[in-house]
Amino acid sequence: MEKIRHSLAHILAIAVKQLFPKAILGTGPCIENGFYYDFLMPKNFSEKDLESIEKRMKEIIKKDISFERKIITKTTAKKIFKKEPFKLDLLKEIKKEITTYQSNEFIDLCSGPHVKNTKEINPRAFKLSKIAGAYWKGNEKNQMLTRIYGIAFKTEKELKNYLSLLEETEKRDHRKLGQQLDLFCFSDLVGPGLPMYTPKGTILIEELKKNIESICKYYGFEKVITPHLAKIDLYKISGHADKFKEELFHVSSEKKHEFVIKPVQCPHQTQIYASKIRSYKDLPIRYMESEKQYRAEKTGEVGGLNRVYAITVEDGHSFCQVSQVKEEVKQMVKIIKKFYQSLGLWKNHKVYLSFRDYQHPEKYIGDKKDWDKCELILKQINKEMKLNAEIKQGEAALYGPKIDFMFKDALGKEIQIPTVQIDFATAKRFNLSYISETGKKVSPVMVHRAILGSYERFLALLIEHFAGAFPFWLSPIQISIIPIGEKHIKYAKQIKEKLKEYRVEINLEKETVSKKIRQAELQKTPFIVVVGDKEIKAETISLRSRKEKEIKEIKLKDFLNLCQNYQSKQKL
Amino acid sequence: MEKIRHSLAHILAIAVKQLFPKAILGTGPCIENGFYYDFLMPKNFSEKDLESIEKRMKEIIKKDISFERKIITKTTAKKIFKKEPFKLDLLKEIKKEITTYQSNEFIDLCSGPHVKNTKEINPRAFKLSKIAGAYWKGNEKNQMLTRIYGIAFKTEKELKNYLSLLEETEKRDHRKLGQQLDLFCFSDLVGPGLPMYTPKGTILIEELKKNIESICKYYGFEKVITPHLAKIDLYKISGHADKFKEELFHVSSEKKHEFVIKPVQCPHQTQIYASKIRSYKDLPIRYMESEKQYRAEKTGEVGGLNRVYAITVEDGHSFCQVSQVKEEVKQMVKIIKKFYQSLGLWKNHKVYLSFRDYQHPEKYIGDKKDWDKCELILKQINKEMKLNAEIKQGEAALYGPKIDFMFKDALGKEIQIPTVQIDFATAKRFNLSYISETGKKVSPVMVHRAILGSYERFLALLIEHFAGAFPFWLSPIQISIIPIGEKHIKYAKQIKEKLKEYRVEINLEKETVSKKIRQAELQKTPFIVVVGDKEIKAETISLRSRKEKEIKEIKLKDFLNLCQNYQSKQKL
Repeated sequence: MEKIRHSLAHILAIAVKQLFPKAILGTGPCIENGFYYDFLMPKNFSEKDLESIEKRMKEIIKKDISFERKIITKTTAKKIFKKEPFKLDLLKEIKKEITTYQSNEFIDLCSGPHVKNTKEINPRAFKLSKIAGAYWKGNEKNQMLTRIYGIAFKTEKELKNYLSLLEETEKRDHRKLGQQLDLFCFSDLVGPGLPMYTPKGTILIEELKKNIESICKYYGFEKVITPHLAKIDLYKISGHADKFKEELFHVSSEKKHEFVIKPVQCPHQTQIYASKIRSYKDLPIRYMESEKQYRAEKTGEVGGLNRVYAITVEDGHSFCQVSQVKEEVKQMVKIIKKFYQSLGLWKNHKVYLSFRDYQHPEKYIGDKKDWDKCELILKQINKEMKLNAEIKQGEAALYGPKIDFMFKDALGKEIQIPTVQIDFATAKRFNLSYISETGKKVSPVMVHRAILGSYERFLALLIEHFAGAFPFWLSPIQISIIPIGEKHIKYAKQIKEKLKEYRVEINLEKETVSKKIRQAELQKTPFIVVVGDKEIKAETISLRSRKEKEIKEIKLKDFLNLCQNYQSKQKL
Repeated sequence: MEKIRHSLAHILAIAVKQLFPKAILGTGPCIENGFYYDFLMPKNFSEKDLESIEKRMKEIIKKDISFERKIITKTTAKKIFKKEPFKLDLLKEIKKEITTYQSNEFIDLCSGPHVKNTKEINPRAFKLSKIAGAYWKGNEKNQMLTRIYGIAFKTEKELKNYLSLLEETEKRDHRKLGQQLDLFCFSDLVGPGLPMYTPKGTILIEELKKNIESICKYYGFEKVITPHLAKIDLYKISGHADKFKEELFHVSSEKKHEFVIKPVQCPHQTQIYASKIRSYKDLPIRYMESEKQYRAEKTGEVGGLNRVYAITVEDGHSFCQVSQVKEEVKQMVKIIKKFYQSLGLWKNHKVYLSFRDYQHPEKYIGDKKDWDKCELILKQINKEMKLNAEIKQGEAALYGPKIDFMFKDALGKEIQIPTVQIDFATAKRFNLSYISETGKKVSPVMVHRAILGSYERFLALLIEHFAGAFPFWLSPIQISIIPIGEKHIKYAKQIKEKLKEYRVEINLEKETVSKKIRQAELQKTPFIVVVGDKEIKAETISLRSRKEKEIKEIKLKDFLNLCQNYQSKQKL
């Protein structure tokens, strides 16, 4: 496939040279799913030019042209490429033998490999996809060239599949859907990388939070609240001052205050643990928190919700005895399972046990004995909980082994978020302790767990996974009621009253019913309820569900049950 | 009363001079509720010294000594006070006539007034209260003196009332109770002014938040979430960059980021409003948010929850048309009433209409017509809602008139938190608009409302108001179940299961029942439930309520109803 893609790059160059003889060649490699070629053009390409180039390429392919490899001397090469300054520039750097590939009159400086003949290329399995600017050799001090991208596969079907995946990805782009569904926004006055959540986006975050918190509460987690600032001393002890050096936001005032903004949550939580004398009877102590932490990402790199300065992290930790680690880890795995099940993502998931690199024990903190014990515990859990985990040596954290989970979203993209990590080091660094049964001061073990990671990235993921059509329990508007006329508003309000535990809107705009249905569809509202004379008389509603599309009349009572069922079973 | 207090200061000096002849006099004025006198002492006073001084004072009073005023020359004064360097220091500054007050052999440099004779002083109506250090003339470059404080009233009863108020205030101190009830903590590593909320404190905050949010949601408020950082430009436009200049926390990074931390919430919310084109049909748009804002208070002044850097503010705004202002303000008054009712504070409250200073219209932003209209609206609301408000001229905000509410806490301390403010300026500053019915771009009016202000101060207030005995719905632990023996644990767990909508603990420690009851009492738990053989057999519980104290046996079913009743009616 690489040969085909690389050969198509040459054919692209041939076509461009034929149609735009003044074009000067850059380079043209194959890339993932396709190829590109850079040109210095006397004028800009248009979409229409792209079409004619593609057409010409197909014609060239059909001519059964061969690719011939030659080894030449530098002198010959300089002669051949005397009108191609970029090729001459490349020639300077070539230290090994110089090879060219020739197809009819077209010769390119190229080390191959290529197909033998264009017969091997399916002219219906490639497509020129886009034009972009690119600096010569990727250096912004050099000249800007025009890059033409192409996509290529073996078969037409593969190409079509890939194109529709691209289209689907674009349609699901969380930045686009985020605006269409009015979930979040940015402001020039506030600054980039600092998303603000609208009422609808806030509902999504709060519902996710409520869901996680209720699952975690069931397993003994208690919520705490900590501030966003701390003296840098806190992070010198935890080690994060070093780790996040350049990503730290420093805080100062005219009154000479000096703080940093937290780049992680756990150091603050250690200080709540440290605020009292703890006994073995108090353990495990489990804290959770959903708060913003801030990291100074590169200014050019923030965008959408995937890369932001303000990161709302759902974080939780258990402080426990070594003998409690196994049960703690098991419970956290249960939490992760329960949460991802509620989003329909607990399928095709993979589990990894990330262990030490046994060749390099010096890379890790802590006692060998503790490591051995905890890796053994993770293996037992894997067996007992039937996780079918794969062991990954050398993937452990600095301070302990961990379990990582990987899911796939609707488009097959891999998502690696949830993790459970055993940590021997942090409690010791902060000098945390509890009084053991024998009256001794002992360091607790910390078990960290991430469930959804950051709300920002998770929201981007969910928007793209569901293409904005969130599960019923998560939808900002769950039910849209459309009264046909003025006189049906009262009935609509009665229904809303009966549905008051849900998020219901009554659309009172002066629009046609079909336009209102269209509006609710665009907002991906799970249930659209239309009511008029007929429905009032029969105590029914006309229901259009997002899933089934066609409208059916059902008893109001049955609709209430339906909602109840969707909500409690967290149906999609 | 001032005469008595001032005369007691002199008597204090006489007693000290008699008991410690080497003491050198500072000054001794009367203050609120009492008096003090400063001395330079050869040694420190002890608690016991205080007792003997007080005893001597009583003896002096009983001697019916008179206070005689004299006008003297500077030369005479210098002679009289030749051994009192602080008096000589004062003499230098006296430009008017020099007066002294003499009682027997004691003469003080003093302009009075005093009682004629110690007969006028009730020796049982004063008390020396404490010793403190104080710099001469309050200047830290001067010598440190010893200050003895006294409390004095006309009658013994008044003194006793005041002393018990003091004692009660101290007992209720939120810093002390906060630790005893384990509600919040501070850490040297995090820094002062940055409270962290433990699981129990977090429950208080979350319950208050839930309460406010559900009331506000009923009145159409929608929750939004905004970040803590913004470019300073946001506050240059809002005017807060100027107003909070020295209180602003500036944020920077090694990557050259420049932000400030928000000192207020509303500018961010204007940017959510600005993220879409709004129509008159969309108004009112009501946002609410409970987030932390940060202000750089003076480093020496932070302490407890009353003065912090991290201020969690419950803030809300309505963007509306002028014609909607009245209804908006009314609804906000209803919200405030409902919330304070839920805490039993909606009594003995006062309401103020804070209007312009009509003599100085130049002090305010906005159209005279708008001001007139809105002040009229507030007057109408006052009448319609029977608020019995008092008009306070000159108390309006820069940008519009407001309604302020004042409550009294359990100790009679005034609390002025809730406010509803009409704001013509901010929306214009941010160039916010909506499309009117005639298709014009119009600036909305903003109505600001604060309900509980900041969670930090409000929590301090609630702790002190309730002395830690929070209403049932707010209590971190609502019910403590104490099984008498091992075999009663199962029944205890069954009860907990039936009470699962409440916050219930089962005390399983190996302690006596009476000690466990004492523990729950110290935690001010509303209901203590004891279960043993008798209760299991009769399907009852032995209930000890915080309010009634004595234990009574009641049917489990009745207890469930009781809890239901307390929770839903938000009983204290």
